[in-house]
Amino acid sequence: MLVKVFVTPRREILDPQGRAVEQSLRSLGFDNVSGVRVGRYITLDVRASSPDEARAEARRMCEQLLANPVIEDYRFEVEGS
Amino acid sequence: MLVKVFVTPRREILDPQGRAVEQSLRSLGFDNVSGVRVGRYITLDVRASSPDEARAEARRMCEQLLANPVIEDYRFEVEGS
Repeated sequence: MLVKVFVTPRREILDPQGRAVEQSLRSLGFDNVSGVRVGRYITLDVRASSPDEARAEARRMCEQLLANPVIEDYRFEVEGS
Repeated sequence: MLVKVFVTPRREILDPQGRAVEQSLRSLGFDNVSGVRVGRYITLDVRASSPDEARAEARRMCEQLLANPVIEDYRFEVEGS
């Protein structure tokens, strides 16, 4: 099953990469842009016998490796049969 | 309007970050995982008078800065009124 993971810097955490991107966008003339946040988008295939099992695996992977829960939030979607 | 941008390494391009994450997942015991790809998930607010205008802006931002079209694909979603 295809798992899509979205990792974002927590709202209260400074996001220097987002600030840098925002400044670059403005210097390119996109001055109608604000609140840029840069996170990660991870896709992977999980062999699982049910969507519930894939979701449980995805949660464990996020907690253990894919996200840093101190400074990042995550959510994920499971697709496929 | 909230714009969500998903940037992924193109299918035919090697993704060393994805390979490293996959190896780390396996070493943690997740041996039912394959095809890990690591991209970016960028969210931003765009002041625009219509969703179409926001979409046009988002496309320009992706082409000019947010994605490298030589090695990356992108897609985006526009939310909000």
